[in-house]
Amino acid sequence: MLDDKAVRAIREDFPILDQQLHGKPLVYLDNAATTQVPRCVVEEIARHYATDNANVHRSVHTLSSRSTKGLENARETVRRYIGAASTREIVFTSGTTASINLLASMWAARLRPGDVVAVSALEHHSSLVPWQQACARTGASFEVVPLDAKGDVDLAALEKLLARGNVSLLSIAHASNVLGTVSPIKEICNLCHRYGTVVSVDAAQSTRHETIDVCELDCDFVSFSGHKMCGPTGIGVLYGKAELLESLGPVMFGGEMVDKVRFGESTFEDIPIRFEPGTPNYVGAIALARAIDYLEDVGRESISVYEHFLVGEVEKGLKEIEGVRILGAPVMRAGCVSFSAEGLHPFDIASFVDKKGVAIRSGNQCAQPLLNEVYDDGSICRISPAFYNTQGEIEECLAIVDEVIGFLRRIG
Amino acid sequence: MLDDKAVRAIREDFPILDQQLHGKPLVYLDNAATTQVPRCVVEEIARHYATDNANVHRSVHTLSSRSTKGLENARETVRRYIGAASTREIVFTSGTTASINLLASMWAARLRPGDVVAVSALEHHSSLVPWQQACARTGASFEVVPLDAKGDVDLAALEKLLARGNVSLLSIAHASNVLGTVSPIKEICNLCHRYGTVVSVDAAQSTRHETIDVCELDCDFVSFSGHKMCGPTGIGVLYGKAELLESLGPVMFGGEMVDKVRFGESTFEDIPIRFEPGTPNYVGAIALARAIDYLEDVGRESISVYEHFLVGEVEKGLKEIEGVRILGAPVMRAGCVSFSAEGLHPFDIASFVDKKGVAIRSGNQCAQPLLNEVYDDGSICRISPAFYNTQGEIEECLAIVDEVIGFLRRIG
Repeated sequence: MLDDKAVRAIREDFPILDQQLHGKPLVYLDNAATTQVPRCVVEEIARHYATDNANVHRSVHTLSSRSTKGLENARETVRRYIGAASTREIVFTSGTTASINLLASMWAARLRPGDVVAVSALEHHSSLVPWQQACARTGASFEVVPLDAKGDVDLAALEKLLARGNVSLLSIAHASNVLGTVSPIKEICNLCHRYGTVVSVDAAQSTRHETIDVCELDCDFVSFSGHKMCGPTGIGVLYGKAELLESLGPVMFGGEMVDKVRFGESTFEDIPIRFEPGTPNYVGAIALARAIDYLEDVGRESISVYEHFLVGEVEKGLKEIEGVRILGAPVMRAGCVSFSAEGLHPFDIASFVDKKGVAIRSGNQCAQPLLNEVYDDGSICRISPAFYNTQGEIEECLAIVDEVIGFLRRIG
Repeated sequence: MLDDKAVRAIREDFPILDQQLHGKPLVYLDNAATTQVPRCVVEEIARHYATDNANVHRSVHTLSSRSTKGLENARETVRRYIGAASTREIVFTSGTTASINLLASMWAARLRPGDVVAVSALEHHSSLVPWQQACARTGASFEVVPLDAKGDVDLAALEKLLARGNVSLLSIAHASNVLGTVSPIKEICNLCHRYGTVVSVDAAQSTRHETIDVCELDCDFVSFSGHKMCGPTGIGVLYGKAELLESLGPVMFGGEMVDKVRFGESTFEDIPIRFEPGTPNYVGAIALARAIDYLEDVGRESISVYEHFLVGEVEKGLKEIEGVRILGAPVMRAGCVSFSAEGLHPFDIASFVDKKGVAIRSGNQCAQPLLNEVYDDGSICRISPAFYNTQGEIEECLAIVDEVIGFLRRIG
């Protein structure tokens, strides 16, 4: 596990962490929303624009070749990071939400009345609404797999649903952005495949602290974002098994994704280019690859163990604060802990906590159905550490949350 | 107009221009594919990640407020740059192609058999194929407005088509990425509106060197990209008149674009957020705004006049090279000049020109129908200067093209 000295060294790579907020040292604990970006990633962006920049896949000149090589090397880095069989399975998008929407739009072409698309009750809007709307458009049924009392996906209920034999696809988060629930994706994929159901994994929250080996997990599609794994905004990935991607027709058109275009009709390129119309965010992809290199330099296992430890510390500390209700108690929790405090508005808690220099999130976490229909708790606070946070920061955050809750109760 | 001294000062802002390629000073003349990025834009990206970075629209904490303010200020900068009536009309996307696909997917909901979507014969794949495919999907007719002998859109033919009374939308480039034709958008919009036809303008090529005032031009939708106006990759804009955007339902879902989400159904936010699902590329938007500030500091009028002058020089020079055929002779040409040389492959020309340090484009320019069906000239070379190019560079490029063509003829 990363020790205090290692974490202090890592923090040197993140200039943003070294600042005062409202006269206090910044404690950034909103990493489930976005992670911070190490200096080397910004330097890679600057280097690219200063030496290699040109459009990709389009020209024979030297700068264009360099940019194209940068993009395709980035594809290989992503492939390696998630253990995909081939770079043909790596589609660059603008982020997780774009990845899932792309997939849902393409998948909708095969949905018919009588088919079912299922999502877990844990899902973020981005992993739920695209499928809900695809079903509404096609007449397919939209089903929700419930959670058990602890906040884990109810696998018995899932199997019962699958056994109907008409579930086309399951959309499920690897790690919940609210409860932190890490779902047993390998088991779920096995189960789904037994019934001929394809699995789309929302890995936005998990790529940093969980190991994702798509072959080992046997997932069919995986979506994730650069900005939640120390990369820049505006870049994401849709992984898909080659035979599945090959079976899909494009829904976005233009630029280099075409083979032959005539005024009368068009034919399209092979995967993955078929799904990347227009100038891709090649600088974003190159910067994402640099972020992946950075995470690997720090050590994926070390990051995972340490982040799990920090989340455990948050949970333990919150349990000791009177009147705090922690959402869920899943078998494995990672990335974040969400909580509310009886009678207090999360907005007020987060605002006062911010005045002490500590950034935590409040609101519906883009998961209204989970909060309103499962937990009846429309809005919550969330603490989400990353590997550059110290144990001392967690202690400080918890002390401030305790103090703020006490203060708000007194003035309430 | 920018004089030599001003251009030399501008070049100091673009570190990439100051390098050797194959032992020669780089001459970058592929600006229609992507422009280079000034130091201040890269510095803005670095500054944001070093001081303000957090996810937008989602939290109450200070960093999130700063990022949100940065994004919304960027929207205002874009609004001002194109003269839109309101920031509600500015939708951030990942680029021009994404903008046009978004619009085409939304517009498709109202297309019926019997409706017509028209494109000009000048269009880039990204401004053509999305509409071609929307028509194929909906049963609407896809019509192509021809060019006159000079390479301008045939307005008489356009009016004849419009007079049928069933043309739902015209998709047209402001400036062609092949011929450089600048179409009279104001006149075309007036004409279209007389017949109840909506106009979608592909402004990818024109935002740098043409003045776009959407109210003055009265266009209904305008799409463009950051990376063709000195901004970063991965950010673009869809402008739409508020009343038109309000009439469209979203086709991509998730994150903050929702109003209420229940497992059973969802309702959606007001414009423009309705069309921005997921974490937007807020750093890209902020950097684009910085690029716009930079262009305005240099002077839009100065850039326009100087770039028109440079394109004129390219055209004049190419005419003097024996056996060179320039594509088109439009009334107003800007941004680029495309050419071929009898019996020689454009790939060979561009490759040998590159060996002399000069970057020009070769290929189908993502406009296969224009090249194959109008000009019967599947592949061409293209020279596209920007305001940071010197007259000396143009002269050098022309001398090298002349030399390479002579050489290839001798060895051919």
